Amino acid sequence: MTRYKLTIEYDGRDFVGWQRQDNGPSVQAALEDAVARFCGETVTAQGAGRTDSGVHALGQVAHVDIVKETDAETVRDALNFHLKPAPVAVLRAEAVSDDFHARFSAIGRRYRYRIVSRRAPLALDRGRAWFVPVALDVEAMHDAAQALVGQHDFTSFRAAECQAKSPVKTLDRLDVTRDGEEIRVEAAARSFLHHQVRNMVGSLRLVGDGKWRRKDMAEALARRDRAAAGATAPAEGLYLVEVTYP
Amino acid sequence: MTRYKLTIEYDGRDFVGWQRQDNGPSVQAALEDAVARFCGETVTAQGAGRTDSGVHALGQVAHVDIVKETDAETVRDALNFHLKPAPVAVLRAEAVSDDFHARFSAIGRRYRYRIVSRRAPLALDRGRAWFVPVALDVEAMHDAAQALVGQHDFTSFRAAECQAKSPVKTLDRLDVTRDGEEIRVEAAARSFLHHQVRNMVGSLRLVGDGKWRRKDMAEALARRDRAAAGATAPAEGLYLVEVTYP
Repeated sequence: MTRYKLTIEYDGRDFVGWQRQDNGPSVQAALEDAVARFCGETVTAQGAGRTDSGVHALGQVAHVDIVKETDAETVRDALNFHLKPAPVAVLRAEAVSDDFHARFSAIGRRYRYRIVSRRAPLALDRGRAWFVPVALDVEAMHDAAQALVGQHDFTSFRAAECQAKSPVKTLDRLDVTRDGEEIRVEAAARSFLHHQVRNMVGSLRLVGDGKWRRKDMAEALARRDRAAAGATAPAEGLYLVEVTYP
Repeated sequence: MTRYKLTIEYDGRDFVGWQRQDNGPSVQAALEDAVARFCGETVTAQGAGRTDSGVHALGQVAHVDIVKETDAETVRDALNFHLKPAPVAVLRAEAVSDDFHARFSAIGRRYRYRIVSRRAPLALDRGRAWFVPVALDVEAMHDAAQALVGQHDFTSFRAAECQAKSPVKTLDRLDVTRDGEEIRVEAAARSFLHHQVRNMVGSLRLVGDGKWRRKDMAEALARRDRAAAGATAPAEGLYLVEVTYP
């Protein structure tokens, strides 16, 4: 048996999310089915981040155990062949040691949230970014975001269904930048609470709209109450960009 | 009656192309239908470039004549409202003089062709770029592209069904650059022959593969024979980026 680390790209629109569920196609099931078609083995694909329905990935990481004697390049190409026509691609496959765990060995996760701020609706970026038809103050958003960086109790930005043991997380980075009509939020941490990035972005929008200032963001964080922060930003703007390991 | 210049973005995957046809939905028909729903008028939308099925636009330009008393912002917003759910967006609407013609007044057109060169198939960029699973020599491609810049008889890069009076065109720019795994070809000219950009890109791929050198590109051009040049690159990588006017 060899454990393979898989780096995966997907378009989240067609899926109920990463995790296998009864109500529709998941990325995990697509991957596990591709493994079964490749080698006839029933595996469980362990993912680093359980992305929600509609959330995309540029670099999700998962691991699978395969008994068949093969090699990493064959695994990558065979899974890509059997994944068709699902919008999932295995970018890299690497043989790793048996104690590697995509989720528990991860020491960093990086997400990107894309907002397109313009008057006209999205044609090419539909389902790939959050369409916001008003102008946003990006400098104020970046400034307010810094109130969230560091180790905090993120209860105000945590989904009710979050299964994490503790609401205390260390946010390493939350940068807001503009590139033309696109606004990008880059978030990095060892790990995130459920919906944390989308909830932080929802509050950043209040700042961009001029409804909140940096002190409101700090107060929302200090309140430790989900109702104190902004609405959850839509899934379609979120991308799991990278997962890092020691 | 007021003539409106419309700058339009669309995802070409769902269309038979710009031009109204019997065999499926066109961008032109989507736009004309939106005008009819807005003001009850039957118009013909004149486009600057008749993009093929699968070709995208970031900045197609069209004009329509509207009798109803209204203003440019209302036209933009109303057309966007009535275009839903088609993946077409009117980015800008401007009232222009009656002698403005989206196609005949244009003095420049700019196209981008996106190639993604990597081993894994495309998930997020499926239908948005040409997937090429081998490495390409981008420097050689850019160098060979310069053999096409200038005024030439482009018969070797012209589709059989092209309706242009003359095969002589002046290519102002054909730049090939790399950004990670993405290779971009930027082409600019007053106007192009039918399939000219896709046919030039098909030949550039032969250069990227090492099968052709710059002299082969120059020879293919000099032969004035479509059979002398490379295959037509797929529609999905092509974007009409901008149309310019005096």
